[in-house]
Amino acid sequence: MSEKADLKHYLRTLSAQIEQAMDALVPAATQYPESLYDSMRYSLFAGGKRLRPVLTLATVEALGGDMAAAMPVAATLEMIHTYSLVHDDLPAMDDDDFRRGKPTNHKIYGEATAILAGDALLTQAFQVLGTMEAKGREAVLLRIVGELATAAGSIGMVAGQMADMENEGSKASEERLAFIHAHKTGALLTASVRIGALFADADEQQVQALTSYAQKIGLAFQIVDDILDVEGVAEKLGKAVGADAAQGKSTYPLLYGLEESREMVRRLTTEAHQALSGVALRTNRLQEIADWLINRDV
Amino acid sequence: MSEKADLKHYLRTLSAQIEQAMDALVPAATQYPESLYDSMRYSLFAGGKRLRPVLTLATVEALGGDMAAAMPVAATLEMIHTYSLVHDDLPAMDDDDFRRGKPTNHKIYGEATAILAGDALLTQAFQVLGTMEAKGREAVLLRIVGELATAAGSIGMVAGQMADMENEGSKASEERLAFIHAHKTGALLTASVRIGALFADADEQQVQALTSYAQKIGLAFQIVDDILDVEGVAEKLGKAVGADAAQGKSTYPLLYGLEESREMVRRLTTEAHQALSGVALRTNRLQEIADWLINRDV
Repeated sequence: MSEKADLKHYLRTLSAQIEQAMDALVPAATQYPESLYDSMRYSLFAGGKRLRPVLTLATVEALGGDMAAAMPVAATLEMIHTYSLVHDDLPAMDDDDFRRGKPTNHKIYGEATAILAGDALLTQAFQVLGTMEAKGREAVLLRIVGELATAAGSIGMVAGQMADMENEGSKASEERLAFIHAHKTGALLTASVRIGALFADADEQQVQALTSYAQKIGLAFQIVDDILDVEGVAEKLGKAVGADAAQGKSTYPLLYGLEESREMVRRLTTEAHQALSGVALRTNRLQEIADWLINRDV
Repeated sequence: MSEKADLKHYLRTLSAQIEQAMDALVPAATQYPESLYDSMRYSLFAGGKRLRPVLTLATVEALGGDMAAAMPVAATLEMIHTYSLVHDDLPAMDDDDFRRGKPTNHKIYGEATAILAGDALLTQAFQVLGTMEAKGREAVLLRIVGELATAAGSIGMVAGQMADMENEGSKASEERLAFIHAHKTGALLTASVRIGALFADADEQQVQALTSYAQKIGLAFQIVDDILDVEGVAEKLGKAVGADAAQGKSTYPLLYGLEESREMVRRLTTEAHQALSGVALRTNRLQEIADWLINRDV
């Protein structure tokens, strides 16, 4: 099997396991109030790359940790990511009708339910961490709670979304655009890797190297997103091409041009590989994921 | 000092300490993005009885625990409560313009910021628990994370709000009304007491007694709320009298009549007192709080 085919198989296998874990961790849509659980599950199982939990699990694997035991922890990253999409799509926010080619949550369930489903998905992540079998590792799980909440909350992802909205309609400065990307997507991607490292008892040097790797691919991922928004294919993106520009959002291609943006992605990817080279870990999957992220066309 | 004056002083002292703790735990509105932190703090410091953290602290006190050490934990209850008010007031939800006599969050900051401020306050609660000084008590704090998330989330408070919205405009059954109240307000009030009990290392029998107390006063509190909505004074409530009825919400007076509702409150209060009588705890404050809750006029 080629490396590419092998990675595809690896990602597909992990995605299936993550979805199985989420299915067990989120209330079934057969109990009252059904529409809340329907709405939560609609967005949770609407597809997607499952990049965040995959990063958590690949990091656990790199450290020789227990991937099966890490599955609920990995699932919490996807719950947080999904809640953020549901709320970002709301009419009062980005007002998006489609996400991954399907109607957004509020288009199906209405605004009120979408707000509540988002709230519930966010809270569910902490419910999972606070009630899962700790097996004597309560201190590690508590630290993961802190890591996840810090990345998702007022000085992390939410600050990024706030900054993104405030800068709509005006060309953001380079500094401001870096802030938006580091917080809106970077914080949770970095936490995905760091949480895997904490779960698998990485030492401080390993945590540092993995954090650096995650920050590089997090930014590269976002710049690729910006590039795809300019030149991508609507069908593959599942949303309108040029949507960011239409909303007056600042992007890397807008600020730096397409060529320089592509160059930044290449540079960041090289740096991500280098960050991992210094530590004695089985990082081949993490390296492959870095390459996959920048070469994706969707 | 009369018992009543003494309780008033006690509640005022605790409220001040809780607000001091929250002030330290929530990002200052002087850092970027300012409007997010402004909005979070606007609702967090908009007054209110601070009933939930007071219950946590009074429970810690009843068990002879360390009230000062419990302060950040108590503050997380108020953060969760505040987030729920901010989201409940949104146009897509209850569409309220005033809360405690002041414009609601979205009337000042706009819908998008109000949604994000709510998300951030919810997440902040878990950030506090996950990053506070654990002093070797990580297992207890992790259990508190689970308790808080379960009470606030998809099978707790959010389920109650969902049920409340679904039953707007139609007379709910007795069973459905009980579900709404037990989840929308009961779950977090009960968690406030249980979290105090966990923090102060209560034994299983004490936790059971305190849980029963909390469930009784939680329901009594909500029925009193319903009664005040019918006969209260708009000025004191800080919102329009009869707002529930106008929104077609089912209430205890509507379903059972005013007299029977008042009788239920009396019965529940007696039961709350009885629940505490069996355990050897300094529960005088909790007893006083129960009486204060049902005799309040606002």
